[in-house]
Amino acid sequence: MRKVKPIIALLTDFGEDDWFVASTKGVIKSINPDVEIVDITHNIKSHSISDGAFVLYNAYSYFPEKTIFIAVVDPGVGSSRKMILIKTKKYFFIAPDNGLLTYIIKENPKCEIISIENKKYFLSEVSSTFHGRDIFSPVAAYLSKDYKIEKFGKKLRKPVILDIQDAKIEKNVITAPILYIDKFGNLIINIKKNEFSNVLKLKEIKNKSDKEILACQTPLKSSYADVEEGEVVAYWGSSEFLEIGINQASAAKKFNLKVGDVIKLKV
Amino acid sequence: MRKVKPIIALLTDFGEDDWFVASTKGVIKSINPDVEIVDITHNIKSHSISDGAFVLYNAYSYFPEKTIFIAVVDPGVGSSRKMILIKTKKYFFIAPDNGLLTYIIKENPKCEIISIENKKYFLSEVSSTFHGRDIFSPVAAYLSKDYKIEKFGKKLRKPVILDIQDAKIEKNVITAPILYIDKFGNLIINIKKNEFSNVLKLKEIKNKSDKEILACQTPLKSSYADVEEGEVVAYWGSSEFLEIGINQASAAKKFNLKVGDVIKLKV
Amino acid sequence: MRKVKPIIALLTDFGEDDWFVASTKGVIKSINPDVEIVDITHNIKSHSISDGAFVLYNAYSYFPEKTIFIAVVDPGVGSSRKMILIKTKKYFFIAPDNGLLTYIIKENPKCEIISIENKKYFLSEVSSTFHGRDIFSPVAAYLSKDYKIEKFGKKLRKPVILDIQDAKIEKNVITAPILYIDKFGNLIINIKKNEFSNVLKLKEIKNKSDKEILACQTPLKSSYADVEEGEVVAYWGSSEFLEIGINQASAAKKFNLKVGDVIKLKV
Repeated sequence: MRKVKPIIALLTDFGEDDWFVASTKGVIKSINPDVEIVDITHNIKSHSISDGAFVLYNAYSYFPEKTIFIAVVDPGVGSSRKMILIKTKKYFFIAPDNGLLTYIIKENPKCEIISIENKKYFLSEVSSTFHGRDIFSPVAAYLSKDYKIEKFGKKLRKPVILDIQDAKIEKNVITAPILYIDKFGNLIINIKKNEFSNVLKLKEIKNKSDKEILACQTPLKSSYADVEEGEVVAYWGSSEFLEIGINQASAAKKFNLKVGDVIKLKV
Repeated sequence: MRKVKPIIALLTDFGEDDWFVASTKGVIKSINPDVEIVDITHNIKSHSISDGAFVLYNAYSYFPEKTIFIAVVDPGVGSSRKMILIKTKKYFFIAPDNGLLTYIIKENPKCEIISIENKKYFLSEVSSTFHGRDIFSPVAAYLSKDYKIEKFGKKLRKPVILDIQDAKIEKNVITAPILYIDKFGNLIINIKKNEFSNVLKLKEIKNKSDKEILACQTPLKSSYADVEEGEVVAYWGSSEFLEIGINQASAAKKFNLKVGDVIKLKV
Repeated sequence: MRKVKPIIALLTDFGEDDWFVASTKGVIKSINPDVEIVDITHNIKSHSISDGAFVLYNAYSYFPEKTIFIAVVDPGVGSSRKMILIKTKKYFFIAPDNGLLTYIIKENPKCEIISIENKKYFLSEVSSTFHGRDIFSPVAAYLSKDYKIEKFGKKLRKPVILDIQDAKIEKNVITAPILYIDKFGNLIINIKKNEFSNVLKLKEIKNKSDKEILACQTPLKSSYADVEEGEVVAYWGSSEFLEIGINQASAAKKFNLKVGDVIKLKV
């Protein structure tokens, strides 16, 4: 049987302008030249753990089995924050223990969680500001050589989990926060298709202050193409959450909304 | 004979900040782990079909034979717009049928064109907003496994072609549109070297209103280095079109010009 | 023995929006399909040789032996500037001869330097503005096939070297320039850990005019996490230089400083 190259997928807030990503990749290739590296993104907003968590969540399940994900959005680097290695049924995840793997842990409640501690698998000199290069990368590279997860540290019981507000439905109003704003300015709302897909008659979309009607719409559309240029549209997005967008424009800019803001929907 | 890995090259307007590119790559690698993915760019201006078409046109011919290009700039996603698969003598191209392959079709008039319709090669659940992940990627991945193009759909006779204004020469004035503005702010004009290279004495460069002389120059220079910093220069660019640039500055910004604007050149 | 794929690593100021990087990669893969291409960055500030030199310097030593680096920040393209190929004990470097390899040459004083001149290894048509595609890429691709460096040209004695101001210590004040500003806005100062690590009591950080105290601090901290959000912090950075940053904000923006500006530190 021909062996398939293991994949290490990277998600960081390092940006693409400096040497951070490159030295990370160099470390990986020096330890395991046979690994294939795929970038998820390096443009997570600096220090935004919630953005990083959401992007990773939307990308990971499309990757081949055994993919190793390194996620580094790490404002606490150099502090006493822990570092974790998670093994789910299909994948491995390596990250600081700061909530970045919240969605992964929630979707994979039976996953094994290790606190990364064994310095044998770190670079020999560990800086206090760049654990992506000095710890996460070598750990991932050794893991890609089929090292057992127990080698890297001890079991961890209580990883850090982000507090994400659930959608609430009262009378005929759903209240839910914006989880993410994508590059087109579409608002991704914490309303999941599999829980709310029966709520088909979306009547009005309002912001929290309840003063402004963002849009009236019955029923949900299926994509931008169903409305005119510049018109507001709500639809089940490709990540299975409700999205509110504007055909060929940014809903986030137009309504001046940001991640965490709460939206009210009359249904 | 050792087998060379097939290449899938990606051009999109997805940006590099979200999970769009990563899930696309994950889908490809899940279907064909042996394929090599090369990014052309993911930073085409949102929904700008003409920019996407021009960038693809300038990149493709440098790739190895059999490369499969996926191009996704797709404002009509979810509408009834078709999707096409093109086979030229050397390459394959997959894209929405919206003009994105205009230059490819013009340069390869004998290419075979298929309307992508066979759902057998799509992801099992197709979203209405993300055909890059759900349709174009799996089709490309199966194609990279040497599936015949006829498997994916029926022949298409009339693909959508962008209307690009040709250069006109009247008396001693050439009129032609700006096709593209690169990251240095250089203006790439629809004046091809192989048709106009005899027009060596470029006397004046004017904007459409004919009021402003952008530059006087005799003859054409060969590069920025031929003029002082801050000086305007016209030269045959690396993509074989006439370019107007400013040494170490942006011509687009200085002259406030955009793609589609028409330039007049006294020769 | 299984053969490991050679790596070609790319650093340019091409940006990621156009076709420049892609055609470069296409050329490499067409000549040597077996090579693996790794991006360092393509976002060096346009024409900034000093930024390019510093980023390359911080990335290169983490790569596997025999990696071939192509560095292209080339405002003099098309002029009579030379092009160089450098062989150090572990690596190869290909670049215009404009100072981009300054740190590499200083760290590897015994390296061999070749002036790239043999047109046999260029593309058949060489544009005057895009030597990245037409010269540097094919030369790197042939080099990755184990061609000897002597094939590409003659020895060069005096490559161009950037003039970088050394740190000076007078009485209890160290004066040194900012070498680089990273994406977090951290100031990387030309004060090396191995020369100045005994200077532990950093008392005041001032700008050149000596009028403004940027920060008071005793002793050096080890990372952002040691100070409150918004507070200034000086620490030995991951590249072994002194860095001045602000926890969760940009020091460069706050103090309005740029590369080349000189900083004074009371110790």
